[in-house]
Amino acid sequence: MTNPTSGHTVESFNEEMRREHRTVLQMGALVRHQIRNAAKTLRDEDPEAARKVIADDLEVNALDIQVAAHVEAILARRTPVASDLREVLTVAKIATDLERCGDEAGKLAKLTIHFFDSPAIAPNYQLLQEVSKVAGFVDLMLQESLDAFDARNIDSACEVIRTAESLDGEFRSALRRLMTFVLEDARSIGQFVDVVLAIRALERIGGHAKNIAGYVVYLVTGRDVRHEDLAAIERDLKITDSIS
Amino acid sequence: MTNPTSGHTVESFNEEMRREHRTVLQMGALVRHQIRNAAKTLRDEDPEAARKVIADDLEVNALDIQVAAHVEAILARRTPVASDLREVLTVAKIATDLERCGDEAGKLAKLTIHFFDSPAIAPNYQLLQEVSKVAGFVDLMLQESLDAFDARNIDSACEVIRTAESLDGEFRSALRRLMTFVLEDARSIGQFVDVVLAIRALERIGGHAKNIAGYVVYLVTGRDVRHEDLAAIERDLKITDSIS
Repeated sequence: MTNPTSGHTVESFNEEMRREHRTVLQMGALVRHQIRNAAKTLRDEDPEAARKVIADDLEVNALDIQVAAHVEAILARRTPVASDLREVLTVAKIATDLERCGDEAGKLAKLTIHFFDSPAIAPNYQLLQEVSKVAGFVDLMLQESLDAFDARNIDSACEVIRTAESLDGEFRSALRRLMTFVLEDARSIGQFVDVVLAIRALERIGGHAKNIAGYVVYLVTGRDVRHEDLAAIERDLKITDSIS
Repeated sequence: MTNPTSGHTVESFNEEMRREHRTVLQMGALVRHQIRNAAKTLRDEDPEAARKVIADDLEVNALDIQVAAHVEAILARRTPVASDLREVLTVAKIATDLERCGDEAGKLAKLTIHFFDSPAIAPNYQLLQEVSKVAGFVDLMLQESLDAFDARNIDSACEVIRTAESLDGEFRSALRRLMTFVLEDARSIGQFVDVVLAIRALERIGGHAKNIAGYVVYLVTGRDVRHEDLAAIERDLKITDSIS
């Protein structure tokens, strides 16, 4: 409650926060759209569509600026405390992470441009297969983290954190497979580098989904779990559960 | 001013903010220490020291948690507005970016481990030269962004943003040089990938330095310049200067 003596102020705060909550979910939908579209431009071998995906980032950036400005105004005018304050801070943090996901999606779109916009040599399609796989994987992670935020669901948030912990291993396996392809055809080294960097960008999106899941735990419990491992988080949440 | 009717509150706010300001600079010093130490472990071929650099990240993480908790407490108790509020939010944002720089420095330390901890093949020293160069470059950028924050100096902040705009080009040139080395010795493809990822991690530190410089412009002017290019920022700042 921002001010328990004034029902009007409380109502206005809730209304303003509902609006920011919706904006953040809208940003999330846009970013997921960017990721899936970027992956599609790669399958369709369509550099023109890839340029559009990069341009779409302006919309995400504009929403990011808007959320930051609203958050500042809400903090100044409503002076929220406790769980209300956490809600405001969480919205600001999620918007920042989503904005960076948009940048990473742009890097995936650049891969399409590098591969199919007047390529110097024939595209190595084996390399591209790995990218599609990882794109689908992190898009799902991002969806799950945003759903967890929308429903304030800690179990789902922990599930995202669990998935994220296996992400580095997945990335390393993909790299090993990619290396065998480039050893078979050394001329594709430039394409190989582009693919490695695109997969790294996608891995970063998975990292942002993990951050968002961490914020959900903070939002609901007040606990900052960003630097803890999942076992510690779940153990403590269970203890809290059994006490309450 | 948090509350112009109470000198005591204003004084306490300023005191608390001085403390957070110092903590953020301390975090910055630690992270720069990590970057330089990680680069040194590579020159010294010392995987043991590299493990220590990775362990040092715990200290940075602890400071990050501390700043976030203090920021939340200051917002709840002091309810700052206007430039005071911007100061609180800036400190929180810089701490988040510095914490991520610490993670990236850890990736550089991992390169030392991959190269020199029971390596499968002889290290390709040509590949490593590029890493040292980029490490020195982004360490300097980070220092300049932190100095700009400490002095609230917009000109220095713009200089960091200018440097950051050339960073992608530098990265691409380094990649091209690295590719020629791996073409001469295809067996070093695994080392090549590790180096590419380490340089990408360093480039991310440069990106965080740019973010910090952007927050300095926001802190001083109230303007959110994260998604603007430098020419637009400088033009508008000049116009503001000549009016005031």
